[in-house]
Amino acid sequence: MERPPWHGLKVGVASYSLRKFSLDQAIQMVKVLGLKYITLKDIHLPLNSSNTEIESAKKKIESQGLKLMGGGVIYINDGTELGVTKIFEYAKMAGMPLIVASPDPACLPMVEKLAKQFDIYVAIHNHGPGDKRYPSPIDVLKLIQKMDKHMGICMDLGHTVRLGEDPVKTIDACAERLYDFHIKDISEAKPSGKPVIIGRGVIDIPAVLRELVKIKFEGHVALEYELDEDSPLVGMAESIGYIHGVLDTID
Amino acid sequence: MERPPWHGLKVGVASYSLRKFSLDQAIQMVKVLGLKYITLKDIHLPLNSSNTEIESAKKKIESQGLKLMGGGVIYINDGTELGVTKIFEYAKMAGMPLIVASPDPACLPMVEKLAKQFDIYVAIHNHGPGDKRYPSPIDVLKLIQKMDKHMGICMDLGHTVRLGEDPVKTIDACAERLYDFHIKDISEAKPSGKPVIIGRGVIDIPAVLRELVKIKFEGHVALEYELDEDSPLVGMAESIGYIHGVLDTID
Repeated sequence: MERPPWHGLKVGVASYSLRKFSLDQAIQMVKVLGLKYITLKDIHLPLNSSNTEIESAKKKIESQGLKLMGGGVIYINDGTELGVTKIFEYAKMAGMPLIVASPDPACLPMVEKLAKQFDIYVAIHNHGPGDKRYPSPIDVLKLIQKMDKHMGICMDLGHTVRLGEDPVKTIDACAERLYDFHIKDISEAKPSGKPVIIGRGVIDIPAVLRELVKIKFEGHVALEYELDEDSPLVGMAESIGYIHGVLDTID
Repeated sequence: MERPPWHGLKVGVASYSLRKFSLDQAIQMVKVLGLKYITLKDIHLPLNSSNTEIESAKKKIESQGLKLMGGGVIYINDGTELGVTKIFEYAKMAGMPLIVASPDPACLPMVEKLAKQFDIYVAIHNHGPGDKRYPSPIDVLKLIQKMDKHMGICMDLGHTVRLGEDPVKTIDACAERLYDFHIKDISEAKPSGKPVIIGRGVIDIPAVLRELVKIKFEGHVALEYELDEDSPLVGMAESIGYIHGVLDTID
């Protein structure tokens, strides 16, 4: 029996999901989930790490067979060349091809300049109704669509649906600049919607995954699991199983 | 957004999966998985329990909102009227509408007689290549198809596929007498196939679930998870998530 291998989607974990655990523990947990892709939150590799510390983290990840898809979410509020350079140097040293970022809009020109210079992609993350700067991926798109191709979007599915948006239409609208994706589910398609295990909420995950397959999304479909921070593995496993089941069933 | 509620399938847990835990723990674990259906292995309610003990177990299950779908797998080697009656009295007292059983073929006439008398259904479980009596659900069918309607089949998906059978065809062939179903996945469609988390093995679970939906299966689709007996919850969660994802995606 042959099945398409998840239709080419790279499903993995945003390490924010494992924020109460060490990098070593987080790596093992990703492996228990049968996954290989990881995006690293700075809790697992602080932005002010030394070169030796970064090199060590990189080796841990690689030696366990995982693939580092990026870093983030990284907040960028210091738009000076020095401030932004530090972040890109960190990403370069760690071997991150992309950073998921939430930059102050005033920093965008400098971020663009250095993204090109370092050849590292930037995926700006939307945070929903409470985010004055980037509530929706569409808000990101408006600001970056005329910028260099290194500037793109990390669509957070939960925050997008909390705005009342149809996520399939949003993916379609952002397809060309969609570089990263935080997959999750929520209890209600309203600002008050709370995170839930994927498959137990209101988001039509099969429709979302069908759309990602349709646009041939090549970025990281990263589970960003916000619940149960002290013991997230059971809910993460159910979430990953759900995604896997959907992908094995869609045509 | 409206979705069919798992297409009417009753997905739950065979408590054999939780054989290292007490009944109280097992009940809580089924709830963590977001499920309500349970089939009780005798480890959680011994066959020689007193009426008081049975009544207490029944109350625990009901008060936690779970629904008891049956007992088993119960081995029946004493085909005397007294021996078989004890089993049906246990099931009746516990409120089991069905027992999943592995009776010695010589016991079948007595089992049939008492199943009718107690109005409790019997689903005979196949155990694959190593089972001299009931390797396949088809072997069960041959023995019980002329018997009373109380006599039926519990198809074990893993053991059936280990025989090299196409499970979809087997479900179709047994549909009229298929009363219970043990869902699992295996590493190879050979006698040497080992249990794995659902979705990680070789069984085409979407095809199997489509067929169960097609025949309007009304019995228990019970996860019988054989791995990680000391810590099964993460793998069970991934398995249940997978089933849920498939069911939310099939038409």
